[in-house]
Amino acid sequence: MRVAVDAMGGDKAPHEVVKGSVLAAQQFSDSEIVLVGDEKVIQRELNIYGADPKNIVIHHAPQVVGMDDPATYSIRQKTDSSITQSVKLVANGEASAVVSAGHTGATVAAATLHLRTLNGIRRPGIAITLPTRHGICLIIDVGANIACKPTHLFQYGVMAAVFSKYIYGIENPKIGLLNIGEEDAKGNDLAKETFALLSSSHLNFVGNVEGREIFDNKADVVVCEGFVGNVMLKFAEGIAMSLLSTIKAEAMKSFWSRLGLGLCKPAIEKLRAKMDFSEYGGAPLLGVNGVCIIGHGRSDSKAIQNAIKLALQLSKNEVNEHIISEVEKTNSLIANVT
Amino acid sequence: MRVAVDAMGGDKAPHEVVKGSVLAAQQFSDSEIVLVGDEKVIQRELNIYGADPKNIVIHHAPQVVGMDDPATYSIRQKTDSSITQSVKLVANGEASAVVSAGHTGATVAAATLHLRTLNGIRRPGIAITLPTRHGICLIIDVGANIACKPTHLFQYGVMAAVFSKYIYGIENPKIGLLNIGEEDAKGNDLAKETFALLSSSHLNFVGNVEGREIFDNKADVVVCEGFVGNVMLKFAEGIAMSLLSTIKAEAMKSFWSRLGLGLCKPAIEKLRAKMDFSEYGGAPLLGVNGVCIIGHGRSDSKAIQNAIKLALQLSKNEVNEHIISEVEKTNSLIANVT
Repeated sequence: MRVAVDAMGGDKAPHEVVKGSVLAAQQFSDSEIVLVGDEKVIQRELNIYGADPKNIVIHHAPQVVGMDDPATYSIRQKTDSSITQSVKLVANGEASAVVSAGHTGATVAAATLHLRTLNGIRRPGIAITLPTRHGICLIIDVGANIACKPTHLFQYGVMAAVFSKYIYGIENPKIGLLNIGEEDAKGNDLAKETFALLSSSHLNFVGNVEGREIFDNKADVVVCEGFVGNVMLKFAEGIAMSLLSTIKAEAMKSFWSRLGLGLCKPAIEKLRAKMDFSEYGGAPLLGVNGVCIIGHGRSDSKAIQNAIKLALQLSKNEVNEHIISEVEKTNSLIANVT
Repeated sequence: MRVAVDAMGGDKAPHEVVKGSVLAAQQFSDSEIVLVGDEKVIQRELNIYGADPKNIVIHHAPQVVGMDDPATYSIRQKTDSSITQSVKLVANGEASAVVSAGHTGATVAAATLHLRTLNGIRRPGIAITLPTRHGICLIIDVGANIACKPTHLFQYGVMAAVFSKYIYGIENPKIGLLNIGEEDAKGNDLAKETFALLSSSHLNFVGNVEGREIFDNKADVVVCEGFVGNVMLKFAEGIAMSLLSTIKAEAMKSFWSRLGLGLCKPAIEKLRAKMDFSEYGGAPLLGVNGVCIIGHGRSDSKAIQNAIKLALQLSKNEVNEHIISEVEKTNSLIANVT
């Protein structure tokens, strides 16, 4: 199995991306990793690790999509970028999966354009795994699609249910709809129409889920519009970082609490690890015809290694094939819905 | 000045509401508080504090809106509820402000129906004050209006700017638009059209603000759709509570970190206070013709006291009058926009 890795993508590229790829190549010796990007730069990074692992190859791509490039511009003008070339390897059948921690919008645009959607799927969505009090919760979509219709949200539920089952081993995952109240009739038109679709499907739909209930494991999967998911997630990152730095600043004000903070450090570090997206190895873009994993911009080598692991799991467990057959079951349900 | 307080609203009503009202009556001896709700119940609570403060009166309202009652039902069927009767005191000119920690939807519905909107305002919005790294940030709307149009978002910006100026003393508040990226052209149609309106207005518009930037004080006011604001805020509450309980659970696992936690306690308590909505005394429903403060369901006596204080400040500083004159300046701008 071959995984194309965008070696130039992410705040810590290429160093941490190449390092993570080397670690993954060692861990998964029966798979091959294609590092996509500037050949010379990648080779220089690989030299740090002595003899190249045999299962790493380089695919030259001279251009890089900057974090400030508009997604559409990157697609039209930078056809030789590491992102587009990585995706094309999957589109041409030369790799089964792509991993990028680069520009999310450009990755989504390239994947949607070159891989196209899976048979029956209307829009792809990014599914992120969030640590909760007693486990995890998958949130889909967190920003791939900001012109969301009820059928899109509904299909996100179907796709994420398959992902939960074949990746996390949750047999009949509970699907929730992010909403502003628990009652059935709550929310805007999008929420109400999606509620009706989810209710009449074969999914294990548990109804509306409010923001704070995500952490109570009321549902294994929570579906929401990409705009909402995106701002919510970034807000959560902001609040988590703000909380930790406030605790630190307050504790530094006195000798005793400074001592206390030192003693608490292992507990706080465990928490930081739990909040750390790198543990979960990136977020799959579900619904495209191929495996596409989007890493966090801050991905370090461990996050890249985990993202490659997730890409291999998705390929080996044939998650896309399962999505197609599950979505087929719901075709009659959404036939006449926008 | 008279403030009507819904004595039956909130998880800790009537006890904490009456207690907070007594505290406020003592603090603001030149104002009068009207406790609205079941006369006998309120009198029993007042008896705890010995002789009634002279500036507290009771207005009997036999019905209570339950937290599970749909908002529209409460308006149509429970016309003698403490919420509706409190709002009506303002509508009839018998009070200048209303405070309720009860059912938010019912309060918004009652206020919109009986007070109507301010001259020129299309939709009211709830503005919540969030503690940030270096101060505060006002987020509007967090759930009053879930069918939001560009003009509504724009007017939220105008209203919150007035509130920031006359309540927090921020002279020329920075107004931001919650969005999924920093570039001007980002986001859904609602965001793009609102961006255009805010850009061409007299407001101190600083552009798009991402979720995590709320804590960096990029803007003093962030406008967003009610649905988005509501789920984001509840998610943040969930994550904050989850973080604090995880730190505690982790720290309890060893003797040294347990000791450390004990020493850190003052720092964590300060943080909890900072996260505590009661410090900010509830959220104003801006845009209705009267002062309406919505308290958090968990409001204790201190939160109620602060909410009454905020209600008095809004009345005394003539915030609504300033809103009307500020909105007038923008009439030509939004004349032909939906």
